[in-house]
Amino acid sequence: MLKIVKKSKVSNARVTELKTAHGKIMGPFFMPIATKAAVKNLSTDEIKKVGAQIILSNTYHLMITPTNKLIKKAGGLHKFMNWPGPILTDSGGFQVYSLSNLRKITELGVIFSDPMSGKKYSLTPELSMDIQSDLGVDIAMAFDEVIGYPASKELVKQAMERTTRWAQRCLKHREKQKQKNILFGIVQGGIYQDLRLKSVKALTDLPFDGYAIGGIAVGEPRNMMAKILDWVIPELPEHQPRYLMGLGRPDEIVAAVRLGIDMFDCVIPTREARHGRLYLWHSKNLKSKTFYKTINITNAKYAKDFSPINSTNLKQYSKAYLHHLFNTKEPLGMRLATLNNLDFYLTLMSEIRQTIRIGKL
Amino acid sequence: MLKIVKKSKVSNARVTELKTAHGKIMGPFFMPIATKAAVKNLSTDEIKKVGAQIILSNTYHLMITPTNKLIKKAGGLHKFMNWPGPILTDSGGFQVYSLSNLRKITELGVIFSDPMSGKKYSLTPELSMDIQSDLGVDIAMAFDEVIGYPASKELVKQAMERTTRWAQRCLKHREKQKQKNILFGIVQGGIYQDLRLKSVKALTDLPFDGYAIGGIAVGEPRNMMAKILDWVIPELPEHQPRYLMGLGRPDEIVAAVRLGIDMFDCVIPTREARHGRLYLWHSKNLKSKTFYKTINITNAKYAKDFSPINSTNLKQYSKAYLHHLFNTKEPLGMRLATLNNLDFYLTLMSEIRQTIRIGKL
Repeated sequence: MLKIVKKSKVSNARVTELKTAHGKIMGPFFMPIATKAAVKNLSTDEIKKVGAQIILSNTYHLMITPTNKLIKKAGGLHKFMNWPGPILTDSGGFQVYSLSNLRKITELGVIFSDPMSGKKYSLTPELSMDIQSDLGVDIAMAFDEVIGYPASKELVKQAMERTTRWAQRCLKHREKQKQKNILFGIVQGGIYQDLRLKSVKALTDLPFDGYAIGGIAVGEPRNMMAKILDWVIPELPEHQPRYLMGLGRPDEIVAAVRLGIDMFDCVIPTREARHGRLYLWHSKNLKSKTFYKTINITNAKYAKDFSPINSTNLKQYSKAYLHHLFNTKEPLGMRLATLNNLDFYLTLMSEIRQTIRIGKL
Repeated sequence: MLKIVKKSKVSNARVTELKTAHGKIMGPFFMPIATKAAVKNLSTDEIKKVGAQIILSNTYHLMITPTNKLIKKAGGLHKFMNWPGPILTDSGGFQVYSLSNLRKITELGVIFSDPMSGKKYSLTPELSMDIQSDLGVDIAMAFDEVIGYPASKELVKQAMERTTRWAQRCLKHREKQKQKNILFGIVQGGIYQDLRLKSVKALTDLPFDGYAIGGIAVGEPRNMMAKILDWVIPELPEHQPRYLMGLGRPDEIVAAVRLGIDMFDCVIPTREARHGRLYLWHSKNLKSKTFYKTINITNAKYAKDFSPINSTNLKQYSKAYLHHLFNTKEPLGMRLATLNNLDFYLTLMSEIRQTIRIGKL
């Protein structure tokens, strides 16, 4: 399923090719977020044009509305949202964790209330697998128990061990399914080296197709990330894809690629665009600490800046125009900012692959 | 400037070709509204793709923000908003009228407060001409005094007479301008036949390039429109463009075309789209009373309607998906609805032209 196209000699970075039911994906790659079956402010034509190979959607949101049953009836998530490429869904574990006091976790699974309607739902490893199968996505994630930071080692240990038992149930349930997804296990264990190592050992003993590192960016100090990756990555099978969930800033992505990560997703480019923050190239030397900069287009100084938003996909619009759109709350503003940021992130991934190929990353 | 390509033998309808600095426009035509230098939810590529030949923007909004001076510095409105085709601006008269108690009208012009900032502005015939010249638009409107319904005949008469005096000042001021626009006079006179006739007589004695009928859809009974057009249109010069401001529903447009109108603008397709109301074809027999229908996509019955939104520009998306997007407040929803409605309106205009050509309207 995973082909390693090129291995770096100067780091653990690699160029990969991942085969899915909806096409091949060159890695390292970044997945724009389409939480509710749409990347906020963009059409699927734009997502493709901007260079996305795969998008990420959310089991939790889609099971509530419009429901997985409806999407199945519509012919699956690809057809429903008019996206022909690969889709990955997370399992709902992270969203359920975010509900904090609206959920109850037992060995069976999670019972939670939808904060919008108050309606009660349950999510178990088996249900999560069935929903992701109904959606017909290419890559599904095992249902995990995420735990925040700070948390006592005992609680982190319990959640990690439960994640392992749930992972076994996910795999077992997949055997019975007609429509099988590529399935990833999720390594947990918080900031504790021994727990991370136990988690990765237990999961890699199971027949998963790929591995994600979860429980990152849940409140722990940002410099813990490199440590956790240093512990976990060497224990992951070389010929399977490695996915760092929920990260990150452009420099964090470059750092994680150098440690051996193949897959990323993050709300940063799309969410920050909606607040007027633009990611822009400074130099394409990815090892420089200042290869990019961010600006806030709502800042008054951009009112009279007639330079193009960027020199790639938005050279026909000026910063002054984008400032005006944000200033007058014209919906086109968020869209152009989102197009800028995704262009930046997806160009970054393509630059990363190219720099590995020429042996410089 | 105006070429009459085809005159109907069964009505006063005509196919026209209007020459502007940014290209020719086939009439009868419809202008999508880009109030603040953007058609809400659409890019200019989409506006073009959907068949718009010309768009309408607003002197009043642009003079306040980002200001006409800034747009002039940016190279004009076309460059600022990245729209290469013709642009018409209204003069600010109608917007100032809508401010009701925030404005004071004198013979010189209008002093008003911006409801957003409280800041005071003045607008005179000369200023309106200068602003429209700064914007660099193809077609400018004379600055008029709009009066609502109901209003005493005396007040309507005073406003109409002032509109005529202001029209003279607009023309006189244009002579001094370097950057000249095509300039339209606006016929006022409310629901009073003698006032409408006096207005049209006075204005057509002046060297305007075209004529608009204003003060329609300001609260008067909807059936007054046909009467007013019946009075005014025969008095308009045949070889100049005729513009019915601010209307209307698709059947009203067809009716007005049959009476001899060439140009339309209206917020209906874009504004109603934002509330989920879609305009859809029923039959292309424009004389049938039911050639179109409207649906509200937020209605629960569309949750499971997997038929395409329409069969032209949105066949790749289902009504169920659009319902989901509105239901979850995804910004793509308003955009797809706007694309549907503008496609409907602009296809309607193209059908109207074709039906006149073949002698059936």
